[in-house]
Amino acid sequence: MKLQDKYPLYLANEAQQPNTDLKVTDKYTGEVATLVALADAKTIDKGIEWAVKAAEPMAKMASYERQAVLQHCVDRFTERKDELAYALCIEAGKPINDSRGEVGRLIDTFRIAAEESVRMTGEVQPLDISPRAKGYQGIWKRVPIGPCSFISPFNFPLNLAAHKIAPAIAVGCPFVMKPASRTPLGAIIMGEVLAETNLPKGAFSILPAARDGADLFTTDDRLKLLSFTGSPDVGWDLKARCGKKKVVLELGGNAAVVIDHDADLDDAVERTVFGAFYQSGQSCIGVQRILVHDQVYDAFKAKLVKRTAGLIAGSPHDEKTFVGPMIDVKEAQRLDNWIQEATAKGATLLCGGKREGAMLEATLLENVDLETKINREEAFGPVAFLIRFSDWHEALRIVNDSKFGLQAGIFTRDIFKILDAWDDLDVGGVVVNDVPSYRVDNMPYGGVKDSGIGREGIRFAMEDMTEIRNLVIRRRSV
Amino acid sequence: MKLQDKYPLYLANEAQQPNTDLKVTDKYTGEVATLVALADAKTIDKGIEWAVKAAEPMAKMASYERQAVLQHCVDRFTERKDELAYALCIEAGKPINDSRGEVGRLIDTFRIAAEESVRMTGEVQPLDISPRAKGYQGIWKRVPIGPCSFISPFNFPLNLAAHKIAPAIAVGCPFVMKPASRTPLGAIIMGEVLAETNLPKGAFSILPAARDGADLFTTDDRLKLLSFTGSPDVGWDLKARCGKKKVVLELGGNAAVVIDHDADLDDAVERTVFGAFYQSGQSCIGVQRILVHDQVYDAFKAKLVKRTAGLIAGSPHDEKTFVGPMIDVKEAQRLDNWIQEATAKGATLLCGGKREGAMLEATLLENVDLETKINREEAFGPVAFLIRFSDWHEALRIVNDSKFGLQAGIFTRDIFKILDAWDDLDVGGVVVNDVPSYRVDNMPYGGVKDSGIGREGIRFAMEDMTEIRNLVIRRRSV
Amino acid sequence: MKLQDKYPLYLANEAQQPNTDLKVTDKYTGEVATLVALADAKTIDKGIEWAVKAAEPMAKMASYERQAVLQHCVDRFTERKDELAYALCIEAGKPINDSRGEVGRLIDTFRIAAEESVRMTGEVQPLDISPRAKGYQGIWKRVPIGPCSFISPFNFPLNLAAHKIAPAIAVGCPFVMKPASRTPLGAIIMGEVLAETNLPKGAFSILPAARDGADLFTTDDRLKLLSFTGSPDVGWDLKARCGKKKVVLELGGNAAVVIDHDADLDDAVERTVFGAFYQSGQSCIGVQRILVHDQVYDAFKAKLVKRTAGLIAGSPHDEKTFVGPMIDVKEAQRLDNWIQEATAKGATLLCGGKREGAMLEATLLENVDLETKINREEAFGPVAFLIRFSDWHEALRIVNDSKFGLQAGIFTRDIFKILDAWDDLDVGGVVVNDVPSYRVDNMPYGGVKDSGIGREGIRFAMEDMTEIRNLVIRRRSV
Amino acid sequence: MKLQDKYPLYLANEAQQPNTDLKVTDKYTGEVATLVALADAKTIDKGIEWAVKAAEPMAKMASYERQAVLQHCVDRFTERKDELAYALCIEAGKPINDSRGEVGRLIDTFRIAAEESVRMTGEVQPLDISPRAKGYQGIWKRVPIGPCSFISPFNFPLNLAAHKIAPAIAVGCPFVMKPASRTPLGAIIMGEVLAETNLPKGAFSILPAARDGADLFTTDDRLKLLSFTGSPDVGWDLKARCGKKKVVLELGGNAAVVIDHDADLDDAVERTVFGAFYQSGQSCIGVQRILVHDQVYDAFKAKLVKRTAGLIAGSPHDEKTFVGPMIDVKEAQRLDNWIQEATAKGATLLCGGKREGAMLEATLLENVDLETKINREEAFGPVAFLIRFSDWHEALRIVNDSKFGLQAGIFTRDIFKILDAWDDLDVGGVVVNDVPSYRVDNMPYGGVKDSGIGREGIRFAMEDMTEIRNLVIRRRSV
Repeated sequence: MKLQDKYPLYLANEAQQPNTDLKVTDKYTGEVATLVALADAKTIDKGIEWAVKAAEPMAKMASYERQAVLQHCVDRFTERKDELAYALCIEAGKPINDSRGEVGRLIDTFRIAAEESVRMTGEVQPLDISPRAKGYQGIWKRVPIGPCSFISPFNFPLNLAAHKIAPAIAVGCPFVMKPASRTPLGAIIMGEVLAETNLPKGAFSILPAARDGADLFTTDDRLKLLSFTGSPDVGWDLKARCGKKKVVLELGGNAAVVIDHDADLDDAVERTVFGAFYQSGQSCIGVQRILVHDQVYDAFKAKLVKRTAGLIAGSPHDEKTFVGPMIDVKEAQRLDNWIQEATAKGATLLCGGKREGAMLEATLLENVDLETKINREEAFGPVAFLIRFSDWHEALRIVNDSKFGLQAGIFTRDIFKILDAWDDLDVGGVVVNDVPSYRVDNMPYGGVKDSGIGREGIRFAMEDMTEIRNLVIRRRSV
Repeated sequence: MKLQDKYPLYLANEAQQPNTDLKVTDKYTGEVATLVALADAKTIDKGIEWAVKAAEPMAKMASYERQAVLQHCVDRFTERKDELAYALCIEAGKPINDSRGEVGRLIDTFRIAAEESVRMTGEVQPLDISPRAKGYQGIWKRVPIGPCSFISPFNFPLNLAAHKIAPAIAVGCPFVMKPASRTPLGAIIMGEVLAETNLPKGAFSILPAARDGADLFTTDDRLKLLSFTGSPDVGWDLKARCGKKKVVLELGGNAAVVIDHDADLDDAVERTVFGAFYQSGQSCIGVQRILVHDQVYDAFKAKLVKRTAGLIAGSPHDEKTFVGPMIDVKEAQRLDNWIQEATAKGATLLCGGKREGAMLEATLLENVDLETKINREEAFGPVAFLIRFSDWHEALRIVNDSKFGLQAGIFTRDIFKILDAWDDLDVGGVVVNDVPSYRVDNMPYGGVKDSGIGREGIRFAMEDMTEIRNLVIRRRSV
Repeated sequence: MKLQDKYPLYLANEAQQPNTDLKVTDKYTGEVATLVALADAKTIDKGIEWAVKAAEPMAKMASYERQAVLQHCVDRFTERKDELAYALCIEAGKPINDSRGEVGRLIDTFRIAAEESVRMTGEVQPLDISPRAKGYQGIWKRVPIGPCSFISPFNFPLNLAAHKIAPAIAVGCPFVMKPASRTPLGAIIMGEVLAETNLPKGAFSILPAARDGADLFTTDDRLKLLSFTGSPDVGWDLKARCGKKKVVLELGGNAAVVIDHDADLDDAVERTVFGAFYQSGQSCIGVQRILVHDQVYDAFKAKLVKRTAGLIAGSPHDEKTFVGPMIDVKEAQRLDNWIQEATAKGATLLCGGKREGAMLEATLLENVDLETKINREEAFGPVAFLIRFSDWHEALRIVNDSKFGLQAGIFTRDIFKILDAWDDLDVGGVVVNDVPSYRVDNMPYGGVKDSGIGREGIRFAMEDMTEIRNLVIRRRSV
Repeated sequence: MKLQDKYPLYLANEAQQPNTDLKVTDKYTGEVATLVALADAKTIDKGIEWAVKAAEPMAKMASYERQAVLQHCVDRFTERKDELAYALCIEAGKPINDSRGEVGRLIDTFRIAAEESVRMTGEVQPLDISPRAKGYQGIWKRVPIGPCSFISPFNFPLNLAAHKIAPAIAVGCPFVMKPASRTPLGAIIMGEVLAETNLPKGAFSILPAARDGADLFTTDDRLKLLSFTGSPDVGWDLKARCGKKKVVLELGGNAAVVIDHDADLDDAVERTVFGAFYQSGQSCIGVQRILVHDQVYDAFKAKLVKRTAGLIAGSPHDEKTFVGPMIDVKEAQRLDNWIQEATAKGATLLCGGKREGAMLEATLLENVDLETKINREEAFGPVAFLIRFSDWHEALRIVNDSKFGLQAGIFTRDIFKILDAWDDLDVGGVVVNDVPSYRVDNMPYGGVKDSGIGREGIRFAMEDMTEIRNLVIRRRSV
C-alpha cells in the first residue's frame, strides 16, 4: 500500500490541484510522505460563496436523498478501509490497530448520521394555554442553519472530521472544512468519496490552509455556525472573533479517573493503561490524572507501573506497537519539559520519561505538585500521574479542581457514589467502571468550563446545525 | 394608586438602598415618577460572587422546591396585579389595558415555568450500537449551567424579564439581572416577591446599573450564560465581548405581514392595526412591513387607513387609549426623522406622521424606497408601510429581503402557500392568519439572521440554561 | 367532624338521590356510617348516553379550560382536605395519618394532571424516506379516545379513582365511574367538586352500583376504554367480556423486597415494616415476600420482628394507630386461614397471627412452603414472610417465581446487581434502596404477568386515553 | 423464473417439511402453483414452547446484534427482489408492478426497523415533585414484552407480515407467525432469510396452519401479544378469546376520499383511480366512498369514469396490467352480489360491473342507497361509488357515518378545512391532497372504531411489543 504522490483540495465538490504546497510528513520517520494542495484566502472565499449557493438546494433535498449520500459514504469507507487506515497510520503516526479502530468509528459515525437523517422530527404543541390564546395551535420543525465552518484536529483526522461532516449532511447544511494541516489526508479522502455523490454543487469544500489566510473560516458572516475541535486556547480565541455565528467548541482537558477501593484492580489497570497511553495519549479524553483510594493505592500502582513499562513502542506500522510517536518533535519536547518541571518540583518518576525525537515513553508519575503544568494544563501525550485519596467526596473535589471539564471515569460499584459523581462532577460525561477516554459515537459528547461549549454525537450536533422554525396557526373561529 | 417614593436594588436576595441615583420618569408626562437605587461595579461584582456561591445549593433544590418558588410568584403577582400594571403604565408609558395584558402574560410565564420545573427529563440511550460498545449503557440528564447574566429591555419590563428569571429558577440557576434603566420597576417588584421565598442566598440579584460599570454583566467569566433582550447593535457587540459564556440574544426586526387575496380583509385589518400600533409599535415583532396582494391592495389600504386614523392616542392611564408615548423623545425624534427621510425619497404618507414630544401618531406609508431606513432598520415605533405584490413567491422573497428574521405573519388559507412559507421564510416563526406580533409564552420564540441567536419560551430557555451531563456505564460482563 | 346522613350519585354532572340503598359502614366499628344512592342499570345506561353526548364538546375544550377544571379540583380538595381524610378514615378504616397522606397524593395527582393537560404534544415526522414518498410530510397529534369506563377499588378510594378521573379530564374524555361499593364516599365527594365546574353536561357520572346490573361498565360498546383497578380475577374476567374497547388493568401482586448483605439494616427494617403493614397491607404493592441475604438474615429478622411486634393497632381515628382493620371480616378471615394453612405446612410464626373481627395483627412468618397460598396468591393484608437467599441471581429468580409482576424492592448499593435486577426482574418497576410499596404519582406504574396490562401515572394514562391521529400532506410539486 | 415444488414451514428457526398439505394456487389461473407444509396444533405448541425459551436470549441481544439481523434481511431481500415479486404475483395474483412495489416497501420496512433497533430509548424522570418524594429519582426503559403471536393477511403477504416481524426483531421479541393460508410464500421466504442469521433458537416460527388447530395462536397464555391483520369479524372475535395477552388489530374499512371544489381534478382522478383499483381494491385503505363537491361532481365523474373504463385488466404477469384477479372466486362473487344489491336498490352503474371467475371489473357506482352493503361494509375489491356533497362539514359527517375509521383522504387546499378534518374525522389518519390509500411505512398507521386497535409503523409497533420497566432510586441522604 502506498500514498498517492499528491492530493487535491476539494472546492465546491470538485478536486482541484492548484499547488502542492502542503508537505505531509510520515510522523514516525519524519520524512515527507506526500504533497497536498493548500487553499489561499481567495479559494476559501469561493468555497464560502458556493456554500451559500448550495444552502437552498440542500435544504430542499428529501430525507432519503440525504440518507443516500451518507449511506454511500458508509459503503465506500467500508470498501476503502485499509487505505484509510494506512493513510492515518502515516499522517498521524497512529498505531495501525488504532488506525483501523478509527476507521471503524468513522463508519459508525456516518451510519448513525444516515439513520438520523430521516428522523429530524418536530413537535405539535398546544398553544391554547390561556384565554388569550384560544384557537391558536403551534407546530415547529427544524431547518438547516445554513453554511457551516468546520475546523478539525490532527488527533482523529477521520472521526472528528466525520462528527462535523456527517451531521451537516444529515440536516442539509453545506460546509467548508479546514482539516488539520499536519493530517489533512483523512478529510481529503472523505472529500473524494463525497464528490462521488450528487450533492448540490457547493455543498462541501475541504480546504487545507495555512493559519494565515484562513481567517475567513472564523470571521466570515455568511457562515452561520463555527464548529471547531482542537486546543482550548485557539478555540476560545475563535469564539471571540466569530461575529454573529453560533459556536461549538470541542476542546481538551486533563481528564481524571477515580479508582475506589472496591474496584477490580486488574481490570482497572488494563483500562487505565488504555486511557492514558492509547495513541500516545493524544486524545481530548486521555487519562491524565489517576486518583486511587488509599487502601488500594500501592497495589494498583505496582500493577500499573508493571503493565505500563511493558507497553511496546515503535513503528506505528507494526501490528504489535501500542505507543507510537507524538504528532511532532515540538509537542514531544513540550511534554518532556513538563515532566522535567514536575520532577524538579518533587514528582517521582515511576516509569518512562525518556524521549527520542517525537517518541516519548509511556510515563507515570506520582507526588506531583498540583500547581505544575502536568496537572493544570492539558498534557495531550503519554503521561499520567497518580493521586492518593481516602474519601469519595474528596476525590470528586480533586477531579473538579481543574479548569477543564470534559469526561471523568470512576471505578466504583456503589450506586450512591455513582449518583453523587453524576450530580457533582462538573464534566460533560461520567463513565462508570471505565476510563474517561471512552466514547461511543451516538452519545452526547462535549465539555464544560474551558473544555468547550456544545455537544456532538450526531443528533446533538444536528440540533446545533438547525434552527427551530415555528408555525403558529390562528383558527378562524373558536 | 401611587408608586413608592423610592425603590431598592436586590443584592443576593435582599433589598438594599445604597442610593437613589436612578430617576425613573413617567413616560407620558416626562416627570420624575420615582427614584431607584443604582448598582456600581463593586455591587455587581458582589452579586456575581453571591451567585457563584448559590450555584450548588440551587442545583441541589428538589424539583418541588423550585416549583414552590415559582408558584409563590404566580400567586403574589396575581394578588399584586393592579399595582404591577400601574407601575408599568407609568414607567413604560404603556396604555393601561396593554399593561394589564402584560401582567397576565407575566403570570402565564411563571406558571409555565412552575409546571416545567418538575419536568426536566433526561434520556436512557442504548450505546451498544457496535461490537466495541457491547455492554455499555448511556443515560443523560440536564444540570444547571451555573450563574447567569440577564439584561432585559424597556418594552416589556415584566414579561421579558420573566422569560429569563422564571426558567432560571425552574432549572436551578442563580442569576444577576440588569433591568432596562428606563423601566426598572417591574423587575424590582419581581425581586421583592422573590425575596419572600426561601431561595438560597445569592440566587438572584436585580441590579439597575448605568451602562458604565455594567460591563461585568458581559465580561465576567464566572457567569456561564449571557441572555440579552434588546437592540441588535448592542446585542451583537455583547456577543463579541462575552468571553467563554454561552449567549442568547433576543433582538429585533422589521417584521412583515403578508395579506393574500383570499384573506378576510376586515379581520386582517384589525389584526394588522394591533400588530403595527400595539404599545406604539415598540415590540420586537411589531408589524413594520405590510405586503398586500394586488387584487385587494386598494380595498385593504382604505380600510386600514380608516381604522388607523381612528385610533385613540393619549394618556396611557386612560382606559380608551390605544396609542401612548414612545419610550422617550429621542426615540420619537429618531423615528420621525426616518419618516421624513422616507417621504423625501418618494414615500406617500397615508395617515399619521405628526409628533409632539414622545407622542408619535400611528403612521402609515406606501411607495417606500426600500433602501431607506424605514424599510432596512427596525422602526420600533408606531410606523408601518404597505408593499404591493402579485405572486406568493415574490412576497416571500420580499419578506426575506431583510437583515432580520424574527417572525412573519401570513394571511392565506392555502395549505401549499403556508407550507412554502414555512419552508422558505427565513424567520424564527411563521404565524398563519395573524400578524407576526403574536406570541404565546410557551412557544419557541427567537430569531435568525440579525434578529438573534437562541430561543426562549421556558422549555427552550431551560435547555440553554442547562448542560447535558452524560452517564455511561460499562457492564462488568457481557 | 361528621359524615352526611346520605350521599347522592352523580349522573351527567348532577347530584341525584334516587334512593339510599347502599349502606356504607365504619370499617372499624362495623356500624353503618352513612347511606349512599345506588345506580341501577337504567341509570348507568343514561350515564353512558350522556357521556357519548359529552365527547365532542369535551374534545373541543381548550387546553386552559381543561386545566382550569383540574386546578379547581386541586384548590377545593386542598380546602376540604380534613373532610376527605375523615371520610376515608371511616369508610376504609384507614388510619388517620395514612388517610391524610392519601389526600395529599390525591392533590398531587390532580396537580400533575393539571400541568399535563396543556402538554398533549404531537410530532412532525419526515415521511420522505424513500423515493415513493417524496413530497409527503407527516404530523400527528393525540385525540381523546371517547367515553371511558372506570372501576376503582376500595383500598385507595381517592387516589386510585383520581388516577382515572384526572387524566380523563386532562385529555378531554367523558367517563362513567363505578367506585368500590364498600368505599364510595371519596369518589362521590370528587363528583361534588367536579359538579362545581363548567364541564360539558355528561362529562362525568359517579355511579355506585351493585355488581348485578353493573355489566354495562364492562360490555357497553359505546365506551371506548375500560380502566379497572382491583383484584386479578375480576380484572381478567372483565377483559374477556369487554368487547371492542381498550383495556387497562391495574391488579395486584405478591410483591417482594430483597435485602442484600450491604444494606443498612435499621433503615431496611423501617421501610419493610412500612411496606408490609402500611394500611394493613391492603396495597397492590404491599410487601409480602421478604428475601434476606444469609449473612444478615438473623440480624434482620430479629430487628424486624421487634419493630413489627411494637406496631400500634387500633382505631384508625387515633393519631398513634399504625394498623387498623382490614376492609371487612371476611377478608380478615380469608387471610387468617392462609396463615393457618402456612403454619400447618411448616411455617414458623414469628409475630402476630391473631385476629379479632376485621382486626388482624401485623404478622410475620418464615420457613413458608412456597406452594401455599401465602406465597402464591396476593395476601392483601398485614402478613409477610421471610426467605433466606445466598446469591443475588438466585434472589432474582425467587422474586420472578410468581404469577405476578408489579413492583419489587431491592436493598443493595451495587450498580451491577441493580442493573441485573432492572434487566431481569419481570415487574413493572424496581425500587432501589426501598420497598416495592413506593409510588410517586407521576411515575409509570403498572404490572406485567397477572398483575395487569397498561400503565398509569397521568402521562401514561393519558396515552391510553387518546388515539394517535395522523395528518399526511402530499405536497403539490416536489 | 419458477416457484419451488414445495416449501417448508419454519419451526424454531429451522425449515421442516412434515408434509405438503397446503396447496397454493396461482390466483390468476386458479391452478395449484406449489405445495407448502402445514403445521398442526402440536407443531404450533412446539413453536410457542421454543419462543418462550428464546425470550431471554433475545432480550439479552445487544442493539447492534438485532440491527445486524434486520440489515441482513434488507440485504437479502434486495438481492432476491425479483424472486419475491414473482412469488407474490403468483400467490396473490398481484400485478407484477404492484408486486415489485410491495417488495420495495418490504425492504423499507426492514430498513426502518434496523434503524430503530438501536434507538429504543427510555427516560430519566424527576420524581421529587412533592416533599414525600424528596430524594427519589426515576428512570424507565422499555423491555421486550415476550413471545408474540402474529397472524398476517393475504393482501400484502410480504409487507404486512414485515410490519410484525421487523419490529419484533428490533425490540427482541420471539414470535410465532401464521401467514394467510392462501398466500404463505412471502412469509416463508422471509423465514428462509431469517434462518440464515444467528437469532437464538426459537426466535421465530413461520407456521402455515389451517384454521382448525390454529387456536393456540389466539388462546395460549404463554404468548404476551397477539397482533392480527385481517378482516374485522375475525379480529374482534380473536380479541374476545385471547386471554391475558395484549391485542393489536389492524382491520379494514370503507375508506372515503373527499374532493372539494378547489381540487385539481385531473390529479384527483388519477389518485382516486389508484386508491380505488390498485391491486383490485384489496387494501384496507382502498377508496370505497368518493365524496365530490356539487360544483365539480359532474366534471369529476366524467373524468373518473373515462379513466377507470380504460384500466387494463388481465394477467398479473403482464407489465401493463393494472387490475388483476381478486384473491378467489368466492370473494369476487360476494362483491358481485353487493353490486347487484346496490343496483337493485337504485344505484346507477357508471362503469365495470362484470365478473369472470375471480376477475371483477373496476366498477363505479353512484346514487347508492347508504343502507346497502356496498356502503356499510368493507368492499375489499375493485368497487367504489360517488356521493355528492355541498358543504364541507356535511362531507365530514358523511365520512364519519361508518362503523369504520382507518384513513380518509381530502382534496382541499384550505387550511381551515384541513384542520377541521383533522379534528373531526374519526379515523387513524387524514391524508391531504391524496387518497386514504396512501401509507409510508414509518408513519403511525391503524384505525379506530371497528377498524382496529393499536398502531403499526415500526416505532409504534415497537411500543406495543415492549413494557415500560421503571427504576426508582431512593437516595440515601437528601
